[in-house]
Amino acid sequence: MDDFVRIVEVGPRDGLQNEARPVDTADKIELIRQLSLTGLRTIEATSFVSPRWVPQLADAAEVYTGITRVPGIAYPVLVPNEQGYDRALAVGVQEVAVFTAASETFNRTNTNAGIDESLARFAPILERAKADGVKVRGYVSTVLGCPYQGEVAVSEVVRVARALHEMGCYEISLGDTIGVGTPRKARAMLKAVASELPMAALAVHFHDTYGQALANIDACLEEGVRVVDSAVSGAGGCPYAKGASGNVASEDVVYMLHGIGMRTGIDLPALATTGRWLAARLGRETGSKTGKALAAT
Amino acid sequence: MDDFVRIVEVGPRDGLQNEARPVDTADKIELIRQLSLTGLRTIEATSFVSPRWVPQLADAAEVYTGITRVPGIAYPVLVPNEQGYDRALAVGVQEVAVFTAASETFNRTNTNAGIDESLARFAPILERAKADGVKVRGYVSTVLGCPYQGEVAVSEVVRVARALHEMGCYEISLGDTIGVGTPRKARAMLKAVASELPMAALAVHFHDTYGQALANIDACLEEGVRVVDSAVSGAGGCPYAKGASGNVASEDVVYMLHGIGMRTGIDLPALATTGRWLAARLGRETGSKTGKALAAT
Repeated sequence: MDDFVRIVEVGPRDGLQNEARPVDTADKIELIRQLSLTGLRTIEATSFVSPRWVPQLADAAEVYTGITRVPGIAYPVLVPNEQGYDRALAVGVQEVAVFTAASETFNRTNTNAGIDESLARFAPILERAKADGVKVRGYVSTVLGCPYQGEVAVSEVVRVARALHEMGCYEISLGDTIGVGTPRKARAMLKAVASELPMAALAVHFHDTYGQALANIDACLEEGVRVVDSAVSGAGGCPYAKGASGNVASEDVVYMLHGIGMRTGIDLPALATTGRWLAARLGRETGSKTGKALAAT
Repeated sequence: MDDFVRIVEVGPRDGLQNEARPVDTADKIELIRQLSLTGLRTIEATSFVSPRWVPQLADAAEVYTGITRVPGIAYPVLVPNEQGYDRALAVGVQEVAVFTAASETFNRTNTNAGIDESLARFAPILERAKADGVKVRGYVSTVLGCPYQGEVAVSEVVRVARALHEMGCYEISLGDTIGVGTPRKARAMLKAVASELPMAALAVHFHDTYGQALANIDACLEEGVRVVDSAVSGAGGCPYAKGASGNVASEDVVYMLHGIGMRTGIDLPALATTGRWLAARLGRETGSKTGKALAAT
């Protein structure tokens, strides 16, 4: 089994998106500059959703044009629809990510569209992206639970993941958006998806709302996944549980990966330093336990 | 495989012992009263070490005599030597815990005695306890790393655990005192000890310094352990990494256990409420992510 794990750093997008305190454009660019020096190979830079939905990322174009893209590092951005794709393309984006939920209720509540409508909206983006030479990643959210409907059927997760893969998404990130999952369920969900799609095309994305993320990641690594989404400093929060924890902290993931003998190519102390820098910008302590421990020793 | 996991709540002892802010005797008694109503079966109440070593627990006798012991719940206390055992016995303690490190350097630095000297000191306590009808638990610390010597040989962990078991300790708690362990190493360590001692006589005890505790616990549960030490609210800290996280939070452990289909007999919302109450007494937010999430929903 391959021992290299690729970390998809989602702090500048999924992390900041859920932070109430506004972050300056210059600080976002500085964050991505620092992250680019840690050995990360994928850094999700921003989101071209409507500024009305996510005011924190209204400066997506400025951020993307402001960063220095290091060769060998991918800087994907989130796009919700063709309009977002147009804005992203206009500033030279080379990789985008589309997203839908596995929960019908969640998708309708958050995007005013059913899952199948969302998928239909992505079809032209995938077609254009192919012609434009733009890579497309797909996110499936609420794979282990939904804040509105509770349980989400694994069969729905499989169906949505397969649809995105068949449309041309090179990688499908399976997201426990509200962080309710535990290791056995996480592993069973991954196993079900991997029974229909290649494991190499799958990633896992855990939020740490109940502190379960690392245990879930370890279970999924045992099942064979080798791509993990995480956010430096554990940035972000949970819009469905005010005050709760956000994305799993990249530093804690990397600490575990190195400890279990996996390679990431990441300089952990450098990553932890960036995490503490970001936390200071957000006016609080780092949300990474490894980040705290490394600062103390 | 049995699906019942016994949580040994160590917050009032291991948690408070590492808290700098003094906690009133009345609050310690109130903490144990609240914990006694959550379904916990074992609550480590305090420590009869020298008040010079641990001023926070100088009121051990007052705490122990102040609590109402609920039938069916064990309230063990830590004793470092025969003098501590005498003090504990004088107030009617029915279960004690002795402790030594698996790291020679750690043991010498912290107790001014080598491991074998420590074990020799415990021999008369174990003999007297047998005659007194007092149960004795044994702690082995630094099982996955030492702040002074770094690596700790698994063979030493096995040797010390076996010595405590042979002396008459009914249960051996294997402690990652500085929280440096990761799942594969934790599991391998447990497996090595379980190759010489009955799994039913083993417990695991993780600190969350690098955020690895739940992943380690899950790995050890898969290996078969069914007793887990934890501290409500993630109380405590790490004397070797100032500002770092303390014991793994009981709430997060229980959330995971219930999620993977294990029984604990514990009322999680009640436990989380107690955790937040304790955190308020310590002047901060709860260290349990589950505790935060449950407060928000």
